Amino acid sequence: MSTFGTLFRVTTYGESHCASVGAIIDGCPPGMPLSDVDIQPQMTRRRPGQSALTTPRNEADAVQIQSGVEAGVTLGTPIGLMVKNKDQRPHDYTETDHYPRPSHADWTYLLKYGLKASSGGGRSSARETIGRVAAGTIAERYLKMAYGVEIVAFVSSVGKIHLPESATDDDLLSEDYLKLLSSITREQVDENPVRCPHEETADLMQERIIEAKSKADSIGGTVTCVIRRSPVGLGEPVFDKLEAKLAHAMLSIPATKGFEIGSGFKGTEFAGSVHNDAFIKKPDGKLGTKTNRSGGVQGGISNGEDIYFKIAFKSPATISQEQTTAKYSGEAGVLATRGRHDPCVVPRAVPIVEAMAALVIMDAVLIQNSRAFTASLLPPLETPLPPSMVIPNETQQEKIVDDIVAKGL
Amino acid sequence: MSTFGTLFRVTTYGESHCASVGAIIDGCPPGMPLSDVDIQPQMTRRRPGQSALTTPRNEADAVQIQSGVEAGVTLGTPIGLMVKNKDQRPHDYTETDHYPRPSHADWTYLLKYGLKASSGGGRSSARETIGRVAAGTIAERYLKMAYGVEIVAFVSSVGKIHLPESATDDDLLSEDYLKLLSSITREQVDENPVRCPHEETADLMQERIIEAKSKADSIGGTVTCVIRRSPVGLGEPVFDKLEAKLAHAMLSIPATKGFEIGSGFKGTEFAGSVHNDAFIKKPDGKLGTKTNRSGGVQGGISNGEDIYFKIAFKSPATISQEQTTAKYSGEAGVLATRGRHDPCVVPRAVPIVEAMAALVIMDAVLIQNSRAFTASLLPPLETPLPPSMVIPNETQQEKIVDDIVAKGL
Amino acid sequence: MSTFGTLFRVTTYGESHCASVGAIIDGCPPGMPLSDVDIQPQMTRRRPGQSALTTPRNEADAVQIQSGVEAGVTLGTPIGLMVKNKDQRPHDYTETDHYPRPSHADWTYLLKYGLKASSGGGRSSARETIGRVAAGTIAERYLKMAYGVEIVAFVSSVGKIHLPESATDDDLLSEDYLKLLSSITREQVDENPVRCPHEETADLMQERIIEAKSKADSIGGTVTCVIRRSPVGLGEPVFDKLEAKLAHAMLSIPATKGFEIGSGFKGTEFAGSVHNDAFIKKPDGKLGTKTNRSGGVQGGISNGEDIYFKIAFKSPATISQEQTTAKYSGEAGVLATRGRHDPCVVPRAVPIVEAMAALVIMDAVLIQNSRAFTASLLPPLETPLPPSMVIPNETQQEKIVDDIVAKGL
Amino acid sequence: MSTFGTLFRVTTYGESHCASVGAIIDGCPPGMPLSDVDIQPQMTRRRPGQSALTTPRNEADAVQIQSGVEAGVTLGTPIGLMVKNKDQRPHDYTETDHYPRPSHADWTYLLKYGLKASSGGGRSSARETIGRVAAGTIAERYLKMAYGVEIVAFVSSVGKIHLPESATDDDLLSEDYLKLLSSITREQVDENPVRCPHEETADLMQERIIEAKSKADSIGGTVTCVIRRSPVGLGEPVFDKLEAKLAHAMLSIPATKGFEIGSGFKGTEFAGSVHNDAFIKKPDGKLGTKTNRSGGVQGGISNGEDIYFKIAFKSPATISQEQTTAKYSGEAGVLATRGRHDPCVVPRAVPIVEAMAALVIMDAVLIQNSRAFTASLLPPLETPLPPSMVIPNETQQEKIVDDIVAKGL
Repeated sequence: MSTFGTLFRVTTYGESHCASVGAIIDGCPPGMPLSDVDIQPQMTRRRPGQSALTTPRNEADAVQIQSGVEAGVTLGTPIGLMVKNKDQRPHDYTETDHYPRPSHADWTYLLKYGLKASSGGGRSSARETIGRVAAGTIAERYLKMAYGVEIVAFVSSVGKIHLPESATDDDLLSEDYLKLLSSITREQVDENPVRCPHEETADLMQERIIEAKSKADSIGGTVTCVIRRSPVGLGEPVFDKLEAKLAHAMLSIPATKGFEIGSGFKGTEFAGSVHNDAFIKKPDGKLGTKTNRSGGVQGGISNGEDIYFKIAFKSPATISQEQTTAKYSGEAGVLATRGRHDPCVVPRAVPIVEAMAALVIMDAVLIQNSRAFTASLLPPLETPLPPSMVIPNETQQEKIVDDIVAKGL
Repeated sequence: MSTFGTLFRVTTYGESHCASVGAIIDGCPPGMPLSDVDIQPQMTRRRPGQSALTTPRNEADAVQIQSGVEAGVTLGTPIGLMVKNKDQRPHDYTETDHYPRPSHADWTYLLKYGLKASSGGGRSSARETIGRVAAGTIAERYLKMAYGVEIVAFVSSVGKIHLPESATDDDLLSEDYLKLLSSITREQVDENPVRCPHEETADLMQERIIEAKSKADSIGGTVTCVIRRSPVGLGEPVFDKLEAKLAHAMLSIPATKGFEIGSGFKGTEFAGSVHNDAFIKKPDGKLGTKTNRSGGVQGGISNGEDIYFKIAFKSPATISQEQTTAKYSGEAGVLATRGRHDPCVVPRAVPIVEAMAALVIMDAVLIQNSRAFTASLLPPLETPLPPSMVIPNETQQEKIVDDIVAKGL
Repeated sequence: MSTFGTLFRVTTYGESHCASVGAIIDGCPPGMPLSDVDIQPQMTRRRPGQSALTTPRNEADAVQIQSGVEAGVTLGTPIGLMVKNKDQRPHDYTETDHYPRPSHADWTYLLKYGLKASSGGGRSSARETIGRVAAGTIAERYLKMAYGVEIVAFVSSVGKIHLPESATDDDLLSEDYLKLLSSITREQVDENPVRCPHEETADLMQERIIEAKSKADSIGGTVTCVIRRSPVGLGEPVFDKLEAKLAHAMLSIPATKGFEIGSGFKGTEFAGSVHNDAFIKKPDGKLGTKTNRSGGVQGGISNGEDIYFKIAFKSPATISQEQTTAKYSGEAGVLATRGRHDPCVVPRAVPIVEAMAALVIMDAVLIQNSRAFTASLLPPLETPLPPSMVIPNETQQEKIVDDIVAKGL
Repeated sequence: MSTFGTLFRVTTYGESHCASVGAIIDGCPPGMPLSDVDIQPQMTRRRPGQSALTTPRNEADAVQIQSGVEAGVTLGTPIGLMVKNKDQRPHDYTETDHYPRPSHADWTYLLKYGLKASSGGGRSSARETIGRVAAGTIAERYLKMAYGVEIVAFVSSVGKIHLPESATDDDLLSEDYLKLLSSITREQVDENPVRCPHEETADLMQERIIEAKSKADSIGGTVTCVIRRSPVGLGEPVFDKLEAKLAHAMLSIPATKGFEIGSGFKGTEFAGSVHNDAFIKKPDGKLGTKTNRSGGVQGGISNGEDIYFKIAFKSPATISQEQTTAKYSGEAGVLATRGRHDPCVVPRAVPIVEAMAALVIMDAVLIQNSRAFTASLLPPLETPLPPSMVIPNETQQEKIVDDIVAKGL
């Protein structure tokens, strides 16, 4: 279905050439300042035509809030969002319509629905992500105002060009890289059009994208995202582990093929004695982990360390060069797709990844706040719990409860 | 929450030392032959104590069907499943209880709930997966009987030992590897205790695990899973893309850190012109793809090709060697965990991966069957659709509709 | 949350004075002819200003389909619907704002959200029902095209004026009344402005409403709804019994206070021997019930007989006469609400009841079609079931299976 | 599906003659004292064989907690509950198996599933309610401990014998009746076996039930339930209004045919000027309503007054006297059901109604606590809201916020 989330729910609608695309956001807390202009910056980062690296189509993508806000403040009721489609002309039927586009959704839409939008892409159009980015921006706004949460994504690879993450291929993530994760800002990310915060690498990436473009070809890449100052206790122990929800969210972005959290695939190559995150007392007196191979999540639940993960985006399926493929009829032929297309989607994917991350965290916050606050209303236990069930240090135990009640986790 | 799925719903309960673990499976089609013995084989593959490579604990794990089956046939009503816990003694409080175990859920459970099961693991215990495996086996049984679906997982790496997937590091997946995916059986997988169907690699993996064991250490790895003969049209275009649901399912398995489908992370390094899956007419006359970098899913929807994906499992957090870490109080110390632990979980993870895959596919089948069958009841359109919205080949179009109605996708 | 349904999901947004109200309908089958004009008739029946009996406000309420439809046919993707609000001025602050309006939502919105829309009503505004009526019309269109389902609601009482349902107060529903249920059409219902298909009663109701209006007062009433030619097998045995879903849907309409199905409250006064619906062979050779006190549902599941139920609507809370009540401050005072208000909502509630009924049936159809079709794909059982588990008449048993597969229940 | 609730979720399993019936309760707050004996009293009130008025079958119904509790305290993880079935013999096939029992679920189960449990009833068996009562008792325990919520149901009518609710038929609910609602206890309800707290009426009801029993017949009735000291702000403005959820819950109880809240169906006969609940300052200084025709809910949201509602239960379908009806084959015949059956279910329905009420309130509390607490973490607004959006009395406004944060609504 077209809905994401349990208590912070986003439902989107819209194809490429319909009247508008939009979303309904249900579950936004009341009393939060919000207007169109708060949503626009991420919308602008998402839209095409931002640089020579992306598609030259210029979509204004001006969001219009339809409901749920009055006097510049959220009411707690559903927020309707709409972005009008400029080009609502039905797609002209041409020679290319005889072909399902390779690695596109034309064919699977037909298999699923028995018919498809004439524009082919239908809901798999990148325009569908407009609603998500708008919704994610609202979620992020709350998280920032209430908890100071920071969510920053950046391009970590284009083709074979990778932002360096470790000293050698045989090492786990380097101190430098973790420092980058703990400090990187969106402003720094936007300093170059490829959105990679490592200047040298960014230049090489840019060259790689221009090379793809010049060959009427495309290239894939990865986006890394870090969530800082996340509340603790987010995620459920079993099916809805925080990393499972993040993976779900990220793999729901068009063109994604992989997700890894913390040390990810590479981490599997290291022994437990090397890989485990030992506990230490942090400067603020709280318990934390010395390293963070877990990526801020243990047993499916956030532990207060930076949450970071990486998403694989395949090379865009739409390329201008000729492709040998078959028609719907099975007859072999050569498909030449006209038009201008993104040679590489990762720079534009950055705000989409941030939006989906915000949606996951916000929904988890609402669920955990329900649990923590509801539990805090119970009277104290008459019989103390055995020490193996609580923290064998009363001061700290009380502190946790205080944190939960007073500050929301 | 502890529920997975929309129409085929699995809800599990149980910790390490409670009376029993179990599950309720809601949405199993009526009229399917089912008894305890059909579930047992995968339960047996999952349980510890199977070889020198796994933990020597011997858990019988005999499933007892409580409801939803009569005269050996499913009623369509919820199937209650129960496996009694042998060891229901409360955990003895010891020196180790002063420590949150590194990279374990002890600390995050406390942060989330304010208390934890004395055994520490609570719901993150591997015993929780019993309910999933049982449920997945039931789903798989239906999929096999109705569609001939085959789901096979195997160990694709242990530490740095990888089953070969491509000729060189610069190539995409090799023909040999894809042939393996298209033919591998569970019997072949079980031929060696490490469950890697490449004998040479399996031997090296076994050595690597024994090395970890001998050092009182642990090692991670990856599991690859292939779903063959999947119905087409599964998955939703936007948030519930089939790969998103698979990622969600796989990252909900304890100790997982990553997921990739098709060409995955490596595929991002290749140009679109190389990476795209061109269409061809298959020997059976149907349209298919020549290559399968997409991993059987395009635009979030299954296309009938093999669905394959890989999951990263970190090295087990519980190791017997001493670890320098902090107590709950923040005081530094040295933790020595007694007991016998899996040095490597991937061999035992194989049936769990298969079970979660079956749950995702079964749920998607129920949802897509609802759509396809309901749509098939509409009368024919009076005005034909423009050719750009349908397949410009009437015979094939009719065939698709026939397939949907007569054979269920 | 603002979503209704599992597979046919409606999400609405909008308050009284925001930019627009609207809805997203997710799960509409692809391939169904649909355009704005198909939705408009029920929208027009819902809107105010239709007669002297309703509020004189004239709202055009022109629906604009935003997405999910191309070439006049549904795509199977979410259908965005929007109706612009004419009056988007913020509410002027007046003396009346010191008062929570009696039996209105002003006070409970403040308790729930800590703030409220200046117009007071917020989401409890009757304008919210626009999205439901539009969505219900789409659901109903499918049900009519695929199954010939007919849904007709009418006003069955205004104040103490009741449409006669039984010969005496001591009887169960009369033959005449059941005949009315089995034949009544929307055209007949609309023959008088009060929407009661019993002319004599309608005249008295009209007088009663005019009396209320002349006294600057209001009056309540009931709406009865019948669903004819419903597919069988709809509804779930336990929590989501069909009557439970209908009750949920109906009690979600503003100003409702009660729901009863079949013989309802009065039926509780009769002995089982009188009340039970005996089975008979119907003229078409199928098994059916002789009477229909059950209201078309047994054990929570539709049996193919007419589904009928009644909903209680309280007298509108907004009245123009002075009311002695307290201010938010607790200070006693006299509230005089200006403006023109519906003295009685039941005539306008008719299309809303029909819409909610269609949403419930459509969602149940999608769920049951999933189950029935999926079950039909299983191979025949090798061992026949004991006769107590199936119909002891093979011909009929096969016929049921045929019906399920061929005609969708 | 067999699940109820969003954050406090109950999933049940079990038929009449399977191994056990049970439930999984997911979402119970951690840290609440709980053991089997806390659940047993309501189980005992529910079970048959309590008096001459109910079925003489004696079911011990001893609940066994399987998980989610350690050291007598809830862990916050799913609570598995199980009650073994004593009689697990398959049903013997007899002459009666040729007949679908009138007004029973035999026929609709066959229509839905294509087969049925040999015992006929399947999930519609009264034994299914065991899981609900156990779950409801846990919910109620929390509500009582955290908020002092009191939930009491009682029998308000048997056949035509009604507990008096108003002075004359033309009056709204009397002062005496409302006083009864505000003070009645379970102990008082249990003073007579019919569970009607009006002695005179109870005697007549008892006679009516014995009359039905002596005639091998059955009789229906109503149960009224009051929820006192409910938190405010519960329920959602649109589809999930509190009364809609209550109606859903109550109509999911077997044999129910109607639901009304507050003044209900009768209230529709009164003018708005008479029916509206004026506001007054209560003795505790808080705003409240003078009357309570709304039944504690306005605009779908609880306002802190007593929530009360009534449910219609039809006469039990199973009667021992002969019934003229048709066989599955369509052939007419006479059915004589052997065995001992409840002549009237309402006395035993009392704890089931209380349980379902507790489940609805508990789920709404978890949802509203999420919203209220999450909203409370936002920093104060820089620009104050217009007076029409907040309470024009700052002291009270602050008090509300204080209440929300400090006391949980």
